[in-house]
Amino acid sequence: MIVVMAPGHTPVERQAVARHIESAGLRTQIMEGVERTIIGVVGDSHTKELLRQSLEAMPGVEGVVRILQPYKLVNREFHGGKDSIVWVRDVAIGGGRVVVMAGPCTVETREQTLQTARAVKAAGAQILRGGAFKPRTSPYSFQGLEEDGLKILAESRAETGLPLVTEAMDGHQLDLVLEYADMVQIGARNMQNYPLLREAGRSGHPVLLKRGPSATVEELLLAAEYIMAEGNPNVVLCERGIRTFETYTRYTLDITAVPVLKSLSHLPVVVDPCHGPGKSKLVIPMARAGVAAGADGLLVEVHPEPDHALCDGPQLLTLEAFALLMQELDGIALAVGRRV
Amino acid sequence: MIVVMAPGHTPVERQAVARHIESAGLRTQIMEGVERTIIGVVGDSHTKELLRQSLEAMPGVEGVVRILQPYKLVNREFHGGKDSIVWVRDVAIGGGRVVVMAGPCTVETREQTLQTARAVKAAGAQILRGGAFKPRTSPYSFQGLEEDGLKILAESRAETGLPLVTEAMDGHQLDLVLEYADMVQIGARNMQNYPLLREAGRSGHPVLLKRGPSATVEELLLAAEYIMAEGNPNVVLCERGIRTFETYTRYTLDITAVPVLKSLSHLPVVVDPCHGPGKSKLVIPMARAGVAAGADGLLVEVHPEPDHALCDGPQLLTLEAFALLMQELDGIALAVGRRV
Amino acid sequence: MIVVMAPGHTPVERQAVARHIESAGLRTQIMEGVERTIIGVVGDSHTKELLRQSLEAMPGVEGVVRILQPYKLVNREFHGGKDSIVWVRDVAIGGGRVVVMAGPCTVETREQTLQTARAVKAAGAQILRGGAFKPRTSPYSFQGLEEDGLKILAESRAETGLPLVTEAMDGHQLDLVLEYADMVQIGARNMQNYPLLREAGRSGHPVLLKRGPSATVEELLLAAEYIMAEGNPNVVLCERGIRTFETYTRYTLDITAVPVLKSLSHLPVVVDPCHGPGKSKLVIPMARAGVAAGADGLLVEVHPEPDHALCDGPQLLTLEAFALLMQELDGIALAVGRRV
Amino acid sequence: MIVVMAPGHTPVERQAVARHIESAGLRTQIMEGVERTIIGVVGDSHTKELLRQSLEAMPGVEGVVRILQPYKLVNREFHGGKDSIVWVRDVAIGGGRVVVMAGPCTVETREQTLQTARAVKAAGAQILRGGAFKPRTSPYSFQGLEEDGLKILAESRAETGLPLVTEAMDGHQLDLVLEYADMVQIGARNMQNYPLLREAGRSGHPVLLKRGPSATVEELLLAAEYIMAEGNPNVVLCERGIRTFETYTRYTLDITAVPVLKSLSHLPVVVDPCHGPGKSKLVIPMARAGVAAGADGLLVEVHPEPDHALCDGPQLLTLEAFALLMQELDGIALAVGRRV
Repeated sequence: MIVVMAPGHTPVERQAVARHIESAGLRTQIMEGVERTIIGVVGDSHTKELLRQSLEAMPGVEGVVRILQPYKLVNREFHGGKDSIVWVRDVAIGGGRVVVMAGPCTVETREQTLQTARAVKAAGAQILRGGAFKPRTSPYSFQGLEEDGLKILAESRAETGLPLVTEAMDGHQLDLVLEYADMVQIGARNMQNYPLLREAGRSGHPVLLKRGPSATVEELLLAAEYIMAEGNPNVVLCERGIRTFETYTRYTLDITAVPVLKSLSHLPVVVDPCHGPGKSKLVIPMARAGVAAGADGLLVEVHPEPDHALCDGPQLLTLEAFALLMQELDGIALAVGRRV
Repeated sequence: MIVVMAPGHTPVERQAVARHIESAGLRTQIMEGVERTIIGVVGDSHTKELLRQSLEAMPGVEGVVRILQPYKLVNREFHGGKDSIVWVRDVAIGGGRVVVMAGPCTVETREQTLQTARAVKAAGAQILRGGAFKPRTSPYSFQGLEEDGLKILAESRAETGLPLVTEAMDGHQLDLVLEYADMVQIGARNMQNYPLLREAGRSGHPVLLKRGPSATVEELLLAAEYIMAEGNPNVVLCERGIRTFETYTRYTLDITAVPVLKSLSHLPVVVDPCHGPGKSKLVIPMARAGVAAGADGLLVEVHPEPDHALCDGPQLLTLEAFALLMQELDGIALAVGRRV
Repeated sequence: MIVVMAPGHTPVERQAVARHIESAGLRTQIMEGVERTIIGVVGDSHTKELLRQSLEAMPGVEGVVRILQPYKLVNREFHGGKDSIVWVRDVAIGGGRVVVMAGPCTVETREQTLQTARAVKAAGAQILRGGAFKPRTSPYSFQGLEEDGLKILAESRAETGLPLVTEAMDGHQLDLVLEYADMVQIGARNMQNYPLLREAGRSGHPVLLKRGPSATVEELLLAAEYIMAEGNPNVVLCERGIRTFETYTRYTLDITAVPVLKSLSHLPVVVDPCHGPGKSKLVIPMARAGVAAGADGLLVEVHPEPDHALCDGPQLLTLEAFALLMQELDGIALAVGRRV
Repeated sequence: MIVVMAPGHTPVERQAVARHIESAGLRTQIMEGVERTIIGVVGDSHTKELLRQSLEAMPGVEGVVRILQPYKLVNREFHGGKDSIVWVRDVAIGGGRVVVMAGPCTVETREQTLQTARAVKAAGAQILRGGAFKPRTSPYSFQGLEEDGLKILAESRAETGLPLVTEAMDGHQLDLVLEYADMVQIGARNMQNYPLLREAGRSGHPVLLKRGPSATVEELLLAAEYIMAEGNPNVVLCERGIRTFETYTRYTLDITAVPVLKSLSHLPVVVDPCHGPGKSKLVIPMARAGVAAGADGLLVEVHPEPDHALCDGPQLLTLEAFALLMQELDGIALAVGRRV
């Protein structure tokens, strides 16, 4: 960490800054430049981080520059530079295979869910996804079948043998979800819901953590740090699109975040190519692009009849389109040294 | 609502769209243009909204255009075009006076909080604010004194007589907060935490709802609609800055949102000039700008010694700076026909 | 086009709107809904577009909704739904092959440029790129060798036989560039430099038009429309990253824009995977992702010694890394039915 | 400037970095931290800036951190911390008075322009603005009366005695504009049109430089630096709205940029409250907010009949609304220690 002193600061101000740093058990090193004096802060990074905001508020200080990333447990650097693998039952996310998690956006009926589950399994998906608790922008939209939906999902899991991932939005829902599912999804709107992150951390279960629409890569990693700090290393990161000025798509899928996250963290990274593009004809090229960029998996929404879906119809793939996509992905995966 | 048919759609596709609309009890009206055919949908707006996504997913449909705003209870149009007033004990937000809510960002000690509460009262603040549960980006940052903080705030409220607003992040914290405070704050990170919005709605207590950093004006109003839909009309909206590409400030304070929200909704609108600018020297001009743009109030963070604060030091006003600001605001408020 | 009348508008206001539309030779069709009355405007789309802003400003009007896209010549719909091919000498952009345009970011010396040109040709690039006029954010940065740089590029073209693309920033530079090069690049900062777009249009030469960092897809297409409106159909669109809140990368590469642009327009679309990511280790996955998403080509910056480059060193590929990338791209291209 | 070495870098890499710095005549200072080694670079800031990108590309380097701002001539720090005043004939921008520049968006007819000029003068405007060359997103929109428009503006200037500001988009237009006008406007789309900035710099005439919709504060200041580097100190900065995800307004007016720019630079700062909000009912509160935030002036578009305007009708003030606004601004200006 480096403290940049303002031009015209007084010797008294500089001494106060040095004393403030040293009283926390850290060392200082002065560097006098032509136009600025900077004070290097040497010592434990956690202590430095705690000092940062108070240093910024001291008289004579122009700013504080952080040299180290503020996350530890999710940091690739402190993990020997190796990839983590997260196991969801017998499925490994983060290894040589690209894991496709597929299923209905929303559980609507038993028949729709079972039919979809069978079809995605037949096409090669390895994990079943589906929503029972749905976060909806409007209070008047369909909010999901709740526990009844979980029961239908559990039946689909039992029949197909696919592990199940589904979303929870608070601690009460989390408890229910963990009774029925193998992995809990924390959605984009809840990426900084800290009580929920902590509870998911304490549960020890695999967590699929989606990037918030205005979250930086650093904020996503700090949200994952909340989960890992509770002792749960089973976190999978998911890029699903960020808010930008472009309105042709609902969110801008930040594909570059895939190699960025893989370089900063050891955690697996998957891509949701549905919510950002928001139109089914765009889902397929973006699924391909995600795998080409090095994603460890995909999260895909499928529906037997998208034009009868209760939620997000325009972005859902038909069962046939999904089967076709799975074939195409094989070629891409091979070209980047993996398999689907 | 209007359905735009794609160029080259078939008569069968058009009939299917019409039947889908009419089977929901709505009427259709065809308009054949030179390059597009559109189908107007006439009837109850709630039913139309429920149909929207399935219409978008139908073959032959290019898109669906919404004519009406999707929110009802917060909508100015359905409230006779008049402003609502939200009472927090004996303080009216949304009337002729600009209400300043001030206090510490975070409750650190009894002394700091009491001293700040006395000072903001003396300077003319009408509501006391302060954080006991703090949402922090890093799990390693100070997270607040929790219930001990609430007790200190309650003591400060008792001594000064100022009503109290403080934040809750989930249902458990909400129950605690409502034991001690007059108004609950739902923070920017939780603007779309739907279980929390519903619980705040069911409580009936005044709610200060902060705009999420990537929330559109429409999404903020729909979040308020969640609260009102539970029967609680006591919602105050708060603009506090949005995420943009500009990094000199932490968030870009969207001052235009003040007149926009006032024109779309009857709810009071206040401005937090601290979190966006992120530097105390910018807080004062932005507080002035908020009042000049027509805000019904301000939310200001004050600290006896910003350079010793545990949280957000760089953006905190000293007690003296706050007193000065209050004097300046008077002139601005008068110029726009109000008082502080 | 549809005019939405405000709630509570008067019959006189409605008649004035209708008269304003009809006096322009267009027809109106009224649709009375439950909560809004809308007026459909039928007739020539160009005339409608010219009326739009004045209609929006009329009393009693809540807003105007555009049904058709505002661009014509670049519109896929009015081009039989087929892809255009742009020929740069004997190289076809937009056909079955993915065209890689590669070369130095900036021409620094004759030796560096010739060495790079030979290497990219050997690795399979089909077009040579390189900058002689460089738009730099700071006036104190190296601004390019100007005409001397063009001469070096022309020599490299002569030796390798690769067609040449290079940037011009105003009419004077354009005249010079067209003496030496086969295709002119209009850079991101000049995407809405209308005098330059018109001159490039009048020249008839192939144009590589880069998306501005805050340009929507629609604005990019309208900029291309400026060129085509002057009678020049030889336009290639280039996605190179947009400004978002994420600062880990310089710009966010909007890969979804590739299938979006291909669906809206018949023009070829290429991707620049260098400027957005801004770091060479991210260039390779993003080049792959671009091809997987369906791009017709790539624009890649290569340098014999990136750590001695005068400009953008961190994002430049070495000659060896470029050769490797070309091999990897083959597999991706095959998986999406193309060749490099 | 500081070079952060990557974890695991070799002594040879560190020496190469040090040699690269020292061979440019700069000094190095090593600081060994617990988790990172950093190398301080001491010496002339211009030389440092030229080295930056090559250092970032060297093996063993994690990143380079800039301590100083990259602009010099526009920097408040190197101007004794004092405000500049820019004179446009006899009007001082940047002094005690808030200067209102008002007039038609676009010159349409002689009568409309003269009538508007008289009205804004009567209401207290000090400078006349109006567009003869209009940058329009679509090639099919009205592009301005060009030189005929300049003649009408010159006549209005002669009759009212108000100095005139109008836009030029390239060197040819600039020459024409300078024959007729007192100040040239460089519009948002041309903020990084470097040939134009240089020519405006060489002209020595006052320049009104509008912030580009995706330009950071730093980029705006570097664009102004281009003008000042040619020897022209007469630059006025203009905030007019940036591109964000919010679509209710056309651009988000970044009012915080006013105090930010005033703190970083000595140049005057004005606000255009029309283009961002895009609706006339929002223009008035935002004009007030701009003055309250400390702007040195405003740029306001006025039209006798907004619903008959050829361009941007929805955002234009009527002559009456403008007169009213001028009265309101007086109170705001007084409250912040200025006059209109």
